Amino acid sequence: GGGYAQALPMEDLNLHFTGDFHAIGAANNLLAALLDNHIQQGNSLQIDTRNIVWKRCLDMNDRQLRHIVDGLGKKTDGVPREDGFDITVASEVMAVLCLSNSIDELKQRLKRMIVAYTFDNQPITAGDLKAEGAMAVLLKDAIQPNLIQTIEGTPVFVHGGPFANIAHGCNSILATKMAMSYHDYTITEAGFGSDLGAEKFFDIKCRNNDLNPDAVVLVATIRALKKHGGIANVDLNKENLKALEAGLPNLFRHIEVLTKVFKQNVIVAINKFPTDTAAEISLVEKACLDKQIRFSLSEVWGKGGQGGLDLAEQVVELCNEKSNLEFAYDLNDSLKTKMENICKNVYHAEKVTFTKIVEKKIKQAEDLGFSNLPICMAKTQYSFSDNPNLLGAPDNFEITVRDIRISAGAGFIVALTGDIMTMPGLPKKPAAENIDIDENGVIQGLM
Amino acid sequence: GGGYAQALPMEDLNLHFTGDFHAIGAANNLLAALLDNHIQQGNSLQIDTRNIVWKRCLDMNDRQLRHIVDGLGKKTDGVPREDGFDITVASEVMAVLCLSNSIDELKQRLKRMIVAYTFDNQPITAGDLKAEGAMAVLLKDAIQPNLIQTIEGTPVFVHGGPFANIAHGCNSILATKMAMSYHDYTITEAGFGSDLGAEKFFDIKCRNNDLNPDAVVLVATIRALKKHGGIANVDLNKENLKALEAGLPNLFRHIEVLTKVFKQNVIVAINKFPTDTAAEISLVEKACLDKQIRFSLSEVWGKGGQGGLDLAEQVVELCNEKSNLEFAYDLNDSLKTKMENICKNVYHAEKVTFTKIVEKKIKQAEDLGFSNLPICMAKTQYSFSDNPNLLGAPDNFEITVRDIRISAGAGFIVALTGDIMTMPGLPKKPAAENIDIDENGVIQGLM
Amino acid sequence: GGGYAQALPMEDLNLHFTGDFHAIGAANNLLAALLDNHIQQGNSLQIDTRNIVWKRCLDMNDRQLRHIVDGLGKKTDGVPREDGFDITVASEVMAVLCLSNSIDELKQRLKRMIVAYTFDNQPITAGDLKAEGAMAVLLKDAIQPNLIQTIEGTPVFVHGGPFANIAHGCNSILATKMAMSYHDYTITEAGFGSDLGAEKFFDIKCRNNDLNPDAVVLVATIRALKKHGGIANVDLNKENLKALEAGLPNLFRHIEVLTKVFKQNVIVAINKFPTDTAAEISLVEKACLDKQIRFSLSEVWGKGGQGGLDLAEQVVELCNEKSNLEFAYDLNDSLKTKMENICKNVYHAEKVTFTKIVEKKIKQAEDLGFSNLPICMAKTQYSFSDNPNLLGAPDNFEITVRDIRISAGAGFIVALTGDIMTMPGLPKKPAAENIDIDENGVIQGLM
Amino acid sequence: GGGYAQALPMEDLNLHFTGDFHAIGAANNLLAALLDNHIQQGNSLQIDTRNIVWKRCLDMNDRQLRHIVDGLGKKTDGVPREDGFDITVASEVMAVLCLSNSIDELKQRLKRMIVAYTFDNQPITAGDLKAEGAMAVLLKDAIQPNLIQTIEGTPVFVHGGPFANIAHGCNSILATKMAMSYHDYTITEAGFGSDLGAEKFFDIKCRNNDLNPDAVVLVATIRALKKHGGIANVDLNKENLKALEAGLPNLFRHIEVLTKVFKQNVIVAINKFPTDTAAEISLVEKACLDKQIRFSLSEVWGKGGQGGLDLAEQVVELCNEKSNLEFAYDLNDSLKTKMENICKNVYHAEKVTFTKIVEKKIKQAEDLGFSNLPICMAKTQYSFSDNPNLLGAPDNFEITVRDIRISAGAGFIVALTGDIMTMPGLPKKPAAENIDIDENGVIQGLM
Repeated sequence: GGGYAQALPMEDLNLHFTGDFHAIGAANNLLAALLDNHIQQGNSLQIDTRNIVWKRCLDMNDRQLRHIVDGLGKKTDGVPREDGFDITVASEVMAVLCLSNSIDELKQRLKRMIVAYTFDNQPITAGDLKAEGAMAVLLKDAIQPNLIQTIEGTPVFVHGGPFANIAHGCNSILATKMAMSYHDYTITEAGFGSDLGAEKFFDIKCRNNDLNPDAVVLVATIRALKKHGGIANVDLNKENLKALEAGLPNLFRHIEVLTKVFKQNVIVAINKFPTDTAAEISLVEKACLDKQIRFSLSEVWGKGGQGGLDLAEQVVELCNEKSNLEFAYDLNDSLKTKMENICKNVYHAEKVTFTKIVEKKIKQAEDLGFSNLPICMAKTQYSFSDNPNLLGAPDNFEITVRDIRISAGAGFIVALTGDIMTMPGLPKKPAAENIDIDENGVIQGLM
Repeated sequence: GGGYAQALPMEDLNLHFTGDFHAIGAANNLLAALLDNHIQQGNSLQIDTRNIVWKRCLDMNDRQLRHIVDGLGKKTDGVPREDGFDITVASEVMAVLCLSNSIDELKQRLKRMIVAYTFDNQPITAGDLKAEGAMAVLLKDAIQPNLIQTIEGTPVFVHGGPFANIAHGCNSILATKMAMSYHDYTITEAGFGSDLGAEKFFDIKCRNNDLNPDAVVLVATIRALKKHGGIANVDLNKENLKALEAGLPNLFRHIEVLTKVFKQNVIVAINKFPTDTAAEISLVEKACLDKQIRFSLSEVWGKGGQGGLDLAEQVVELCNEKSNLEFAYDLNDSLKTKMENICKNVYHAEKVTFTKIVEKKIKQAEDLGFSNLPICMAKTQYSFSDNPNLLGAPDNFEITVRDIRISAGAGFIVALTGDIMTMPGLPKKPAAENIDIDENGVIQGLM
Repeated sequence: GGGYAQALPMEDLNLHFTGDFHAIGAANNLLAALLDNHIQQGNSLQIDTRNIVWKRCLDMNDRQLRHIVDGLGKKTDGVPREDGFDITVASEVMAVLCLSNSIDELKQRLKRMIVAYTFDNQPITAGDLKAEGAMAVLLKDAIQPNLIQTIEGTPVFVHGGPFANIAHGCNSILATKMAMSYHDYTITEAGFGSDLGAEKFFDIKCRNNDLNPDAVVLVATIRALKKHGGIANVDLNKENLKALEAGLPNLFRHIEVLTKVFKQNVIVAINKFPTDTAAEISLVEKACLDKQIRFSLSEVWGKGGQGGLDLAEQVVELCNEKSNLEFAYDLNDSLKTKMENICKNVYHAEKVTFTKIVEKKIKQAEDLGFSNLPICMAKTQYSFSDNPNLLGAPDNFEITVRDIRISAGAGFIVALTGDIMTMPGLPKKPAAENIDIDENGVIQGLM
Repeated sequence: GGGYAQALPMEDLNLHFTGDFHAIGAANNLLAALLDNHIQQGNSLQIDTRNIVWKRCLDMNDRQLRHIVDGLGKKTDGVPREDGFDITVASEVMAVLCLSNSIDELKQRLKRMIVAYTFDNQPITAGDLKAEGAMAVLLKDAIQPNLIQTIEGTPVFVHGGPFANIAHGCNSILATKMAMSYHDYTITEAGFGSDLGAEKFFDIKCRNNDLNPDAVVLVATIRALKKHGGIANVDLNKENLKALEAGLPNLFRHIEVLTKVFKQNVIVAINKFPTDTAAEISLVEKACLDKQIRFSLSEVWGKGGQGGLDLAEQVVELCNEKSNLEFAYDLNDSLKTKMENICKNVYHAEKVTFTKIVEKKIKQAEDLGFSNLPICMAKTQYSFSDNPNLLGAPDNFEITVRDIRISAGAGFIVALTGDIMTMPGLPKKPAAENIDIDENGVIQGLM
């Protein structure tokens, strides 16, 4: 958020907020400590240290921790093995917290999470380590939805944060249901595009909880469309109708996915930037209306709620239309078919390649009884494909599924494509260098 | 605490509480990430990766992280080096937070912290990495004292937690000063015995802030005295006057340190346990009174405030006596002399040995201008010596200072003796296995 | 060898022989030690420890050493970095030794070898570390060809041993030239098939030394042809004409490569095994003669020299025919074109894929002036493709070049395809367990 | 050697010689590979990867390999663990080779070597891994003594090379016995001083083989005595009678050890250097004769055999005197008593300290039945004490045994004192940089 479209208190949101992420990190790392302690104390479960899939996590961009060897030192300092840290939002605990409807469900999901395999290749779960109770205690406050408000006083739930490129991308089901109980209209954000956030919102969260959305607001920006039209970042501030036109197929592709695959009622909302020109805006509007697509210009950033009145009214209208959510794949299909359906129907890939290791792991997942789980694709947000440089609305490309992970607690199979990073690094000049606080508590450089 | 001597809410105290520890961990780890990012981005400060002294931390007992190699993987995944995690309470950030009187002092102290040395053996500080501002922002709430109450409603500040065996052992100066501003009597806890918590409270915290305590309550238990008398743990529940008598020299040694070295007015408070017998209690009482040492039986655990009335009245009397704090060493002495003074005067060691590496590091610390800093001894809490099995009131033993660390931000030199662990491990059967929470939020196994 | 086709002394050949491999290992590892010592002593060349390409080696199957972190411990124990060991035959020193015509050329080649890159991505050579002189001294005896004899007294040079799947696959040029100086006919072995050993013998060794072979003996076995016809290993001992026929296209593909691409005169020699049946042998003979391909049955294993008279006579005849070696690619082509020419013309691949990292490294190699070097393909010996399970004479497959290495001393670019292992591991039951020597020096289990 | 006191061919001696060291390295590393392969293949022996005591080795000064983590990478690339390389002379295989009288004894000793401990702390030997046969095969030539000659044609056996500071310090028993069989007088070198080489020669090698030396030649230099008199290295070339006199007690201490402890007939031989002055030589001569110690000036370096005639004649005379070797300790004493006897009687230490870990390991060694083994002290050669800076003939010092190793194959307990390095590093400017060979094979810089 920003401008007049902010939730408050913004500083706390950007710092520790209510401590939920720290609690998720603590639960994640308690499980890791219990796992390594079990091995150190005699390893009665016969865990293969070459086959541990649970990673530690930190809420920090710290590439130095991506690949480590730990357990070094004396015999009392653990058992040497390869390990690594993910960023907290990539932890399965984050997904589990967001998908649980109660403390009891939380514990059941935590218990099912697979952390390692034995020498005989059998899965070891958090439940085998008796970790779920203590983890749930650490999460007892984090599972409560956080209610804050916008700059104009509208209530906002901020609860959970799995990224849609590396995880399932939606806020907690508890927050969604609480909002639905108390309000006439509940709006929820599904991160990134229809290929990532929306697909997972529908296929995982809605399916899992029998939710049937009334309408979809597809938010776009003139800048992003020009980028998809082939313009370099530095030139996005200049009017460029040709590039904008060249980028429109990307917008229409998203609409097609939402209407054809998921059978949703859609309105396009252009999030107005100061650099957008009237000619650019009317080009997009005309293109939408020509195709009978609802359109609204949203000026909430600049004008607050007043800037969104038209959008709000159109959404209310849209909600009166009939809506029947359909899914991108059937849960009863095989894991490979489900992945192929997403790649072909949602991304428009021509071919899906599975590496040897993936073929083997899919076989293992199905043997272990996980063939009915939905899929959570890990894919770049910059393209419909797994290649971040393939912009616009590409067809006829190939996608490679290079690894899968069984998230038995979250209840999905993560399919990794491209170079999706689960632990970011800091840039050449970290933002932290410019952040400061003075004697009166006034903070600079945070936003 | 426990029984009727509890601060509430106990569960939160044992979990994330106000998130201060997480904030300290985040600040500590941000600094580590900035350090490694600097090296990765070209290392213009010429930091020697073999000579980095800043460790990452977690609020978790996790021996697996004591010694690690990180930065493994591709060229973009950091620079390989040896590293390790401490438990959060052992972070210098914890000490800095507890010793700072303001945000401004906090930033100044953070800035001075030494994180590494260059190839030319020059110190690199958090300030060189421009980290202090962002770290202070992360600590902006953690530096505010936390006010809670006892089970009977007495106000209690709980703020900061450096252990007295591995760190300086007292709560924050801000909480102490806030308590002194609002109340007639301020009682503060100095962890472990007079040799650890009290020594550091006097020599570091009081000296640093011109505090002059009016009285010292020396808390002891019949059980601990019997243990110092040579009894095994399993036999502590049985009356044993002979062992108790044999353990008394330990009590008198503590009193001697407090009265002779620090010139304090002292009262002994026996914290009554259900297994203590009347004969045992009166043996201790008589021994104290014979030596003209004030004595009181504290029954707060069993009876609440009523059980501490006699102690309270005697403390009030004691506070009316004149008190003039003296120190165990003079800041102007050399670092070695200061360490020797603590070891000889407070611990009754006969000889202090400095390893070769320590001799070299002391020379370096003095060359860098740190010769006037006070000393923070890291020593076992189980003995006056560096050998946890040497009970009672030993004399004529030798102490080895095996390493030192310059805590330039905290403003002291840490001297490490014995096998002091800065990252604990979990036991054979971790407590976590028995912790649980039910659907109504009722927690089991936490305390 | 085996049977009557042996070079003696066989035991020494299988043990340390003349110590050449140990000398190569010592020279290889001296260079590694000089490199790490340079870094430890101040790293004035600014070597990037994340970008060191020189590995240590051992003449041992030891998978444990494939990927290591070394330089751990105290500041005086080196600089931590990722490293690894190859088996000695995979060392570039082995290739350099085999391709050098003199001590002087040996030193020049050693000097050019690239061991690492700087922070600015500039190559560091053995010459930059002043290593070539001492390495050449360690190799002064190893560079002398070793002359032994067969069981019947025929002279045999055994000198150098780069494998043809991971290296350039031919014995030393000095041994070849010495044999050519002293004898009427010189026969040399090019490891594995025409796609590996022969291709490298022609394109690298012959081109480099203006050698023009008079004839090619293509050695085949009935067993291998049946395997290419789709039979499992356990069934190879049984007569199976159908499988044999199905495997013949593999034989003809090799002949096609030798005659069409390299323009060589070829004779097929079937190395007779006791399990071969007369029907099988005559099937192959007839198939060859039908295609006007010379054929001879070699029974040297069972009968010694007598068993090879026909083959010898035919080879003498063949040598009288005109022969003009041509190459699979032109040195002036780009590196990618050269790789593609080998893959398409020799292997019959339809498409060659270069990974992103390879594209980048090819660009770098060309920028560094190495575009005129020949190519040394690292590829499985089990298939014409990079997939060891694709038997027979496949067409229309795709090959992926997944990495390249600049062997500036050997004078070629290594292109790695498939999972070519440069450090083997031991099997479940190592042969060593059955090897023994008795009090009289009689060895068991070695062969 | 040097000057006219050389064994030839000197260059080969300094390079690979007969390949014995490479064979020892290969046998050592085969055992390591078998060990890790056993673990990788299922670890049926239940080897604790935190408790492996067998290290790999290389005949190279390579500090980078002192402490490593190996077995990294994929599941097929071994099991991660801490490891390290020693220099080949420090391998127990070197000691075993030197102490074996036959192939059969070699195999028996190899078989007994302890390589690791199980999770239950039971020793795993090379025999448990069935390694001794293959190792003995690799050593079949290395166990044969190597006979070369001096510059004047005198036969010299050069066989085996355990250093006397880190190992037992004498050449092979087979070479000694072969020399004794063929010659009237056999002279053997025991490395470093009477405290190291001689002590081990007597207490280990002579005791083990019932050898009774006839005479001891104690070789000394004027330069070394001046150094023990307190002179810096740069000043050793100048005449300094005062320093020389101050250094004499070191010489007499060695004589005292040889005569009083081991009951040997001793002659002092001064190895003449060009810088020695007549006054210096006669000072030493007079001091010896005053104490009735035989003395001879050896000028073999400058004059060849002629320069040693007087020494030879005196040695012949000395050999006619009666000699009855006694030992520094009794094999039946406890391990600690044996170590104390060496430290007190031979080194003149006042006190021997055993670290906690050593106490524990001694207990374990005795429980495993190794209490009757002799001791092999690892100690600096620069001082009678464990402190290389304590020169002359010190008394009243303390020695710390900081670790022990059970060399069950060699048949002794290694006791480590001080900072004895088993893998050296290269200096700032390695000698290798100046070594070269020209086109005619002429080598420079090697000696």
